Formats: sequence, C-alpha cells, structure tokens
Amino acid sequence: MPRIKCVVSYDGSGFAGYQVQPGMRTVQLELERALKKIHKGVPTFVSASGRTDSGVHAVGQVIHFDTDFHIPDEKWPTVLNQRLPHDVVVLEAAAMSADTFHARFSVVAKEYRYHLNRGQHRSPFRRNYAFYESRPLNIALMQEAAQYFVGTHDFTSFCSIKTEVADRTRTIERFDIVEQGEEWIFSVKGNGFLYNMVRIMIGTLLGVGYGRFKPEDIPDMLAAKDRNRAGKTAPAHGLYLWQVDYKEV
Amino acid sequence: MPRIKCVVSYDGSGFAGYQVQPGMRTVQLELERALKKIHKGVPTFVSASGRTDSGVHAVGQVIHFDTDFHIPDEKWPTVLNQRLPHDVVVLEAAAMSADTFHARFSVVAKEYRYHLNRGQHRSPFRRNYAFYESRPLNIALMQEAAQYFVGTHDFTSFCSIKTEVADRTRTIERFDIVEQGEEWIFSVKGNGFLYNMVRIMIGTLLGVGYGRFKPEDIPDMLAAKDRNRAGKTAPAHGLYLWQVDYKEV
Repeated sequence: MPRIKCVVSYDGSGFAGYQVQPGMRTVQLELERALKKIHKGVPTFVSASGRTDSGVHAVGQVIHFDTDFHIPDEKWPTVLNQRLPHDVVVLEAAAMSADTFHARFSVVAKEYRYHLNRGQHRSPFRRNYAFYESRPLNIALMQEAAQYFVGTHDFTSFCSIKTEVADRTRTIERFDIVEQGEEWIFSVKGNGFLYNMVRIMIGTLLGVGYGRFKPEDIPDMLAAKDRNRAGKTAPAHGLYLWQVDYKEV
Repeated sequence: MPRIKCVVSYDGSGFAGYQVQPGMRTVQLELERALKKIHKGVPTFVSASGRTDSGVHAVGQVIHFDTDFHIPDEKWPTVLNQRLPHDVVVLEAAAMSADTFHARFSVVAKEYRYHLNRGQHRSPFRRNYAFYESRPLNIALMQEAAQYFVGTHDFTSFCSIKTEVADRTRTIERFDIVEQGEEWIFSVKGNGFLYNMVRIMIGTLLGVGYGRFKPEDIPDMLAAKDRNRAGKTAPAHGLYLWQVDYKEV
C-alpha cells in the first residue's frame, strides 16, 4: 500500500495543537476528516514528524498516511485542500515506500523559527504570529548566548518537567538570530527537540537580553539538569515548525 | 475642551466593521469602551474619518474625541492601548483645536490598499489578510485599466446600490499595482470614496485581468452610471484603509 508524504502548513491560532484530543479542534483531526471524506467514510490514520502545541504554527510540518487510492503526487494537495479548512494547507505530496519512510521515525533534523516583534506599538496583524516585546534587549548578548546551545548536550534543564522521554541528549546544529524589519527571527536547527525545548531556550535568551542572565550562565544551566535553572517558557504564538529533514532514500 | 486626534490600526477579521451596531462587536464600540473606562464611566463619542466594512482592516484610520482629561499627546496611545483588545491599536495621538479639526469633515485625501495573494497554494497565514486568486491574471492590462479611474468622474457605476449620497463625483489621484513577493498590492488614493467603491474597482480590474473586460471598457462603465455594468465587489478581507490626509492647520 503506497505511503503518501505531505508537507503541511497551518496557522496554529485556532487549534488546540497538532495531536488529536477528545472534544478539541486539532490539525490531525482536520487532516483525518479530509482523508475520511476522500476514502468514502473509511478512517485513515495520519502520522506526523511530531506534535506542535496549542497556538504553535507550522510552515513545513511533515505527515504521512497509507492509502490504496491512486492519485498522482501533484494532485494530492488539491484533493486534500478542497476538503480542508483554510487554516491548514497541504503544500506538496510524494508517494514513498512504507519500508523506508516514516514521518516521525525517519526524521534526521528539524528547524524551528521564533518571531519576536520589536515595533514601537504591538501590531494588530501580528498578535497571533509574533511575540511582542518592546523592552530593551541586548541582541549581541543573546546571539552570544545562543551559541552555547550549539553542540550535543543533555537538555533536561530546557524541557518541560512533563517530558516523558528518558534520553534528553540532543544535538543543535545552529542557532541564529536575524533582524527582519520590525521583527527578530530566531532560527534553530537540530536532530530533535524535547517538549517545550525551543520555547524554553528562547525564553532563556530573552532573559539574557533583559540582563537577567549572562551568556556564560548557559553552560551552568545545561550542567544543572534542572528546569528551574533555565528561563521562562516563551509564548507559543511566536513559534513555527519551519522545516523537517529526512535522509535521502 | 481639547480634541484628540488618533491614528488607529485594526485587524478587521473579528469585527462587524467600524461603526457601532446594536449587539455587534465593532471597532468604534471598543474605542468608546476604552474611553469610558478612562473617563470613569462617562461616555465619550468617537468620530472617525469614515466607516470600514466587516472584515476590512485599517493601518491608518483616523478618529477624534473631545475630552477634559489632560494627558500629554505621547501618553495617549499607551493609556488607550492598555484598555483596548489586541486587535485594535492606537499608534499616535495629537491634541487639535475643535474649531479647525474634525476626523471626518477635514479629510482631504484617503489611500486604500488591496492585497491579492498569488502563491501556488493559499497561505493559512494570509487567509484573513489577502484575497487568494491562483488563476492567470494579466497584470499589464489591469495596470492599464486602473489608469482610467484616475481623474474626476461620477462613480455611480462603482458604488453599492445602497449608496445614500447624491453626489457621486470623486477624484482619484493615483492607482498603482505593484508586486511584493507572492502578493500584488493595489494602491489607490483619492479625495473620497463611496460605499464599496474600492472593492468594486478592484473587482472590475480582476475582471480585466481574467479577460472578461478590456481596459477601454472602463470609460463606458463610468459613463453608464449603472452598477450592473461594472465588475463584482472584491472580498472585504484584502482591503486596508491605509492613510488619511488632512489639510495642514
């Protein structure tokens, strides 16, 4: 049975996150609803590269589903988008082998971005798409601090205490902060991220920007393996799952 | 009593337009609510440069209100924004004389912009902020057609049949269409606009882009003074009240 890989973009504002939860509107629910219509009432399960929290957006989430329907790759986005609400859009699709591709288990790297709005006033148009912070922030110190995350570390201090996975070692490949108009864009790429890990790293970098922490505090925070040592969890609505990379098959 | 002029930006998505209507959430209602809190329960009436329809956005709407409260100009935005929901923001304020300034009657020109999204797929992030149209459109013919609106004309064919004002003569100073990434931005400036006038002009230009009308049809449409001769009314959510100009006082 062919496996269809799709790149999906969504506005997280109207969703209680990616994953199905009873009684809640989630992205997975909408995708499975659309597939059920296509499959004449037969349920189809959707696997994603990972969950995203309530309010978190995706530009390049990756999902897969198995189907007996033979639709050319380039037609799948249209077929799905016609049955999806306007805050979820399938951007591309490709048939894969179920033996070699799994949306979650075949991930080799993910990139997240975080948008911080620095305008003189909060913008009504960015209120769901960037975290607004007008207070002074030392961007040079934040950029310096971000480099301490690069490399392989135990990120116990930088994940939610609700994290269930035992091995909290992850490798961060790069962590950049660039200015784009009124916004600063944080871009972090790594081989995997724990629950709330990006938002806690961003919240800690904001703490450095305010002067509450020093860049050199980051290695101590990592070594402590204690969530209480790191900074606050930055709000969800500035966060975007930007891209998911897979090994070439 | 000092008159305070404010430049206001709002996301029209959550509003039933600018003007107060019983039982509806409107921008005027939110502004008057915030002012009532500031004035310890005493109602304050807000006058705007004009209404905007449900779903229409504003980057530079101008309003005024009269008040006995003495707050420095530069403090008014903060005082108001602390009491306003996040989809309405006061950007600047200035004390004016009630003898020489009125948000509606002193207007000398207005600029509207319209965003058309031309991406390969509709974007979940632009669904409330730009009209999505993937069909082929001849932009050169649309730009040519737009120039027929420039000048002084009777715009009876280009306003809603519900328009109540008798004199439908308006002067358009310029009408440009520029590409910005995946979007085309229509920008039109004039001394005044009738009910639905910008959306009907845009809808007619789209008709030219599709090949339904020719640019040279515009003068005939204007001469006919008949709403049925012009194109469709373009959707509200692509439209922005961009700027309101007043005479220097």
